[in-house]
Amino acid sequence: MNIDTIISALHAVREQKPLVVNITNYVVMNNTANALLAIGASPIMAHSREEMDEMMSFSGALVINIGTLDSVWIPRMFAAVEHANHHNKMVVLDPVGCGASALRTQTSRQIAEAANKLIIRGNASEIIALAGEQGSSKGVDAMDSSDAAVGAAQYLAKTYQCNVVVSGETDFIITADRKVKLNNGHAMMPLVTGMGCSLSALTGAFAAVGEETGLAATVVFGVAGEIAAEQSKGPGSLQLNLLDALYLLDDATLISRLKMTTC
Amino acid sequence: MNIDTIISALHAVREQKPLVVNITNYVVMNNTANALLAIGASPIMAHSREEMDEMMSFSGALVINIGTLDSVWIPRMFAAVEHANHHNKMVVLDPVGCGASALRTQTSRQIAEAANKLIIRGNASEIIALAGEQGSSKGVDAMDSSDAAVGAAQYLAKTYQCNVVVSGETDFIITADRKVKLNNGHAMMPLVTGMGCSLSALTGAFAAVGEETGLAATVVFGVAGEIAAEQSKGPGSLQLNLLDALYLLDDATLISRLKMTTC
Amino acid sequence: MNIDTIISALHAVREQKPLVVNITNYVVMNNTANALLAIGASPIMAHSREEMDEMMSFSGALVINIGTLDSVWIPRMFAAVEHANHHNKMVVLDPVGCGASALRTQTSRQIAEAANKLIIRGNASEIIALAGEQGSSKGVDAMDSSDAAVGAAQYLAKTYQCNVVVSGETDFIITADRKVKLNNGHAMMPLVTGMGCSLSALTGAFAAVGEETGLAATVVFGVAGEIAAEQSKGPGSLQLNLLDALYLLDDATLISRLKMTTC
Repeated sequence: MNIDTIISALHAVREQKPLVVNITNYVVMNNTANALLAIGASPIMAHSREEMDEMMSFSGALVINIGTLDSVWIPRMFAAVEHANHHNKMVVLDPVGCGASALRTQTSRQIAEAANKLIIRGNASEIIALAGEQGSSKGVDAMDSSDAAVGAAQYLAKTYQCNVVVSGETDFIITADRKVKLNNGHAMMPLVTGMGCSLSALTGAFAAVGEETGLAATVVFGVAGEIAAEQSKGPGSLQLNLLDALYLLDDATLISRLKMTTC
Repeated sequence: MNIDTIISALHAVREQKPLVVNITNYVVMNNTANALLAIGASPIMAHSREEMDEMMSFSGALVINIGTLDSVWIPRMFAAVEHANHHNKMVVLDPVGCGASALRTQTSRQIAEAANKLIIRGNASEIIALAGEQGSSKGVDAMDSSDAAVGAAQYLAKTYQCNVVVSGETDFIITADRKVKLNNGHAMMPLVTGMGCSLSALTGAFAAVGEETGLAATVVFGVAGEIAAEQSKGPGSLQLNLLDALYLLDDATLISRLKMTTC
Repeated sequence: MNIDTIISALHAVREQKPLVVNITNYVVMNNTANALLAIGASPIMAHSREEMDEMMSFSGALVINIGTLDSVWIPRMFAAVEHANHHNKMVVLDPVGCGASALRTQTSRQIAEAANKLIIRGNASEIIALAGEQGSSKGVDAMDSSDAAVGAAQYLAKTYQCNVVVSGETDFIITADRKVKLNNGHAMMPLVTGMGCSLSALTGAFAAVGEETGLAATVVFGVAGEIAAEQSKGPGSLQLNLLDALYLLDDATLISRLKMTTC
């Protein structure tokens, strides 16, 4: 995949305005809906089993984020994955805090197992924990470097026949046969809650228009985040500048800022 | 209703600081509470059946927004409507995504049926679907123009003995015997999640001080949104500039910007 | 406690990045997580009983905010308090709307009773209602002055063997043997939802590094809020400027702005 494919995917999102169903955590519902709107997609935040078949029938992808999981929401997640499978739609799994509790690790693995078409997007600690390796998860923030998670991501890609995005200071996009490394983004981004969750939502929007590796979403989000952070004196400003940057992002800026290495 | 009545209503909200109970969706709870505070009202976000009688006893209005409805929340909505009826308070219904699922359409109709005093505030697609006409609902964003929803709104006004606000590029306020058309607002507003939801919340605040048509809220929100969008380079800025604009809105600005036609 | 202790506590939060578990209300989950990140702490927003023992085992404090309580969430709050007790961690109780309904008053008292190590942070009306005095609670916004709540706060400090923060135009920090009065902050702060809730979250972060009176959090939040409000034309700007101000706050600014009186 090269820069032309990334730009085409961005144009496709803006033209097709794909509907993306999100079962996400309470903390980031607003941010992730706004990130989807800013990039040109149309968010649906819905979780009721009674309407999920209808919702998935006309939507382009399903994003499952376990950030505030509990015994009421977990069955809703599985029901939604079943409907996504039935309608042959991509599931993006964001295993928030995987490794920080047995419940999160187990639920993440079961969702990964259940989804027919899958992209996993997590930070290094989550990816390492999901693969069952010994990482250093503590809470929901990454404690490991992305480089340390590449092996785990490759294991997940093989085990679940999926693509994996490891995001952090360096991002990795791992597919069955390739590894792409990205160095966009900014050190201030982890100081805003839900940055990874917003990237997972955008991953769903790009998957809905056929870019199913997670790469275009990660590039767009990293470049927009970098621009936004340069304009921000702190994490409060960054949160809103990011939405503006996603909205304003043009091809020339994307091309000139992209720091991508294919291995 | 003329501009003087609108301005009086705005003054009344700022002086009386009405309490407005909101059962709204997870995505917009923060925005709508902040919109109420910015205009001078006092939001209560509460849903527990155990306390709803007390809450409605000292509050001025109830706002019900079905954006993230499910089988746990729907009974809470009906319980709240009963208490609003008991205390003779206005119910503002925001039928988010009405038409996108049978559950949403059915629940919206049942709430409209249950409320004694009612204002409905929706986008064109939601109003059309609520009235049972053939619209083009897809997801939660409007796919129809407001003009196309006027007939449906008039049908709803008659059926439920209520007032109806159709918001969009053009807004319509429909009462039993009048139709008011507003052309304030800005094309960037739909790119921020929860704009309609915030308008519904404000509609509750104005109803609580006796302006029960939905007009003053729609004017204030449209003018503030227009000012905010002109100051914003993207939807991130718009979200915060809107709260500032609601807070700073003065009579002269309101008068000079108002684009209202009574039909 | 003097200014040096406050500054040491701020440095400790930034260096130790304490994990703080929050069971808080839907409205402010995003703000409070961002406030914790901006000051240098690491928020965990989790409520599931299945994982609470693990979460409390490696976290530094528990914040319980009853803002959108219901029969599903109340048992989760009690379960979390038990695990905090078991792991000898501080519980910060934010009794949102205490006095506005019997459910809120009763639940607040039961949580205060259950916690072994406790700080209570509320506005004047909530503190008065929690102590069982006759205040003027109406909704969730304070109707009483902080001065009127000092006696109630002292009663609570004695009854529950805890420290109490009464926040408002004037803040009071009440411990078993002292009363500290703070005059930082700004009149625009109550126009942003969740300001008190963010202060409660920060109180948890400071408790996690050993500052268990609530004073350092209240000073930091008041000074940052004051700076942010001076830079803001309305409550929308204030919300983001506050996060920036928390992030940028330095020792010299804190010292020069502090308005503290020990009685």
